[in-house]
Amino acid sequence: MTTTPTIGILGGGQLGRMLSVAASRLGLRCHIFEPGAQPPAGDVAHTITTAPYSDEAALRRFAESVDVITFEFENIPAAALDLLAALRPIRPGPEALRVSQDRLVEKRWLTDLGLSTAPFADVQSKADLTAAITRIGTPSILKTRTLGYDGKGQVRLDESSDPAQVWAQMHGAPCMLEGFVPFQREVSVIAARALDGAVSVYDPGENVHEGGILRTTTVPARLTPAQRSDAVLIAARILNALEYVGVLGVELFVTPQGFIINEIAPRVHNSGHWTQGGCAVDQFEQHIRAVAGWPLGDGARYADVVMENLIGDDMDRVAGLARVADTSLHLYGKAEVKPGRKMGHVNRIQRKGS
Amino acid sequence: MTTTPTIGILGGGQLGRMLSVAASRLGLRCHIFEPGAQPPAGDVAHTITTAPYSDEAALRRFAESVDVITFEFENIPAAALDLLAALRPIRPGPEALRVSQDRLVEKRWLTDLGLSTAPFADVQSKADLTAAITRIGTPSILKTRTLGYDGKGQVRLDESSDPAQVWAQMHGAPCMLEGFVPFQREVSVIAARALDGAVSVYDPGENVHEGGILRTTTVPARLTPAQRSDAVLIAARILNALEYVGVLGVELFVTPQGFIINEIAPRVHNSGHWTQGGCAVDQFEQHIRAVAGWPLGDGARYADVVMENLIGDDMDRVAGLARVADTSLHLYGKAEVKPGRKMGHVNRIQRKGS
Repeated sequence: MTTTPTIGILGGGQLGRMLSVAASRLGLRCHIFEPGAQPPAGDVAHTITTAPYSDEAALRRFAESVDVITFEFENIPAAALDLLAALRPIRPGPEALRVSQDRLVEKRWLTDLGLSTAPFADVQSKADLTAAITRIGTPSILKTRTLGYDGKGQVRLDESSDPAQVWAQMHGAPCMLEGFVPFQREVSVIAARALDGAVSVYDPGENVHEGGILRTTTVPARLTPAQRSDAVLIAARILNALEYVGVLGVELFVTPQGFIINEIAPRVHNSGHWTQGGCAVDQFEQHIRAVAGWPLGDGARYADVVMENLIGDDMDRVAGLARVADTSLHLYGKAEVKPGRKMGHVNRIQRKGS
Repeated sequence: MTTTPTIGILGGGQLGRMLSVAASRLGLRCHIFEPGAQPPAGDVAHTITTAPYSDEAALRRFAESVDVITFEFENIPAAALDLLAALRPIRPGPEALRVSQDRLVEKRWLTDLGLSTAPFADVQSKADLTAAITRIGTPSILKTRTLGYDGKGQVRLDESSDPAQVWAQMHGAPCMLEGFVPFQREVSVIAARALDGAVSVYDPGENVHEGGILRTTTVPARLTPAQRSDAVLIAARILNALEYVGVLGVELFVTPQGFIINEIAPRVHNSGHWTQGGCAVDQFEQHIRAVAGWPLGDGARYADVVMENLIGDDMDRVAGLARVADTSLHLYGKAEVKPGRKMGHVNRIQRKGS
């Protein structure tokens, strides 16, 4: 144990980076565990451990040096989690990870809770896929049950798709076929639950994706007051069912029949970055507060915000963006610009009464 | 040189800590040079060098690992500065440090610029002190010319003071006697100048001190529009005369005869912490932008803010403050609470139109 409370964070990307900065505002230290060298979070963390998730000795030393453990991504190997959980509290807890690590488990868990999802089917073979297409139809999306993000590990099917060919592309990975939901828009709700069970939900944001990657989130989302309160209730229901501690992202499709849950993420979420420019306490600090056992802070929205991701060559626009009024830049310090790589984001802020 | 631009910061206290966080938002790294162990800035810096300012090899390695050097305090030993300046740009430059490191030099420099200060006199001996008291009178304050902060290194004189006794307290240090200025209030102006000469000035804040330590800064300050523009012009004049690059703090006494300059600080300043809760770009990011050669950002004030320092046992109030709406906490991660020690601050924000 340390004299200054220390949060252990699994994963050293931009989410870990912004979590570490938020922890510093509360006088807390962060220790980042990340297999890759020179992680973005390492620039603003007290300690970094560079080791694979299979290195049990490194995991043990990491756990013993911190007071509580959290994570910036959900795909943490189960063996590493088990080892860590025996040594220190992990928040959010193992149940949230179990549910969200497997798309099929997540869909089943959500429907068991009485929430609506797209139609889905377990696909473990070519025969399963053919049967699933017969039941769910096309257009639909075949997704690996585990891993994959930003549109990776997904194949879209239409009426001309050949099941055998599509199945071959998945290299035998357990999959799920998901029916296509005709939706008006996608919104996401960022919500937090404290150790004492208190819940705080941020105003929903409206998302626009390009090429499978989030491009912008705009608050307020175009929702009716009834939809807005529905969204809050859905998020709170998920948090309570999971006995969750921390921040959770819930992506919702808006349809004429109500909300369809696209997916949940047991962590701070890209679609919650606008909170840095619109709330006294942003999603990163809210997560750290929950994980550290603090009371949740004021998450009321005080401004309209458009959050835009800076992806790949968008970095060429930074010099111009730096001069724009009511605009906050957040760059992740990644040395190499690659197409499709999230390099930073910008919050354009329109304050009420201004 | 590094691939990710790196700012070297001399001093690892809370100002260095918040500068490092601001640098991270711009995708920059920080390397902290600090003689003391476990500096607050070390929790959020890429690299820390722990070495005294007399360690030439450490200074040289530090300079060679960074792109530009800045500082969080003005009392950097001259030999260290000379060594560093030969290797990397130091911003703000040596002239700003030369002027601000010595209270007498600073007063002379300000009056040469045509600005008003309290009456002052050089005091190098008991005889000087007696002569100075005759000229300036009491109440007045004897201050060491160099070092000292938060009221340290100062003795207040009234009509009953014995010059011989007071002089003995200074242990032969070169001093300056400063006349007492009857003022209505103290305000400070936080101003920035970019590498290209562009100037941006934050709205003045009104300061309240207790026991020689800043207690609160409130924006807006109680100033007339004419006083407000005078304050801005004074700050801009100082920045331009010093060919300054970075953020500067100017403390002003408000008197019926106009502003009297109390002192200047060639760095981010405690009385500018409110900008974290009231501006799109705060004083820390503004300083990093200037030092890194970026354009200055939007420093317009969008909210009324009361910044309160959390000193010593004020830390007992943190659990309560964490629950207050429209309130942002900033704790410095100092393990040991001591009387008079700045442990953090809190910004209470009153947004326009809310």
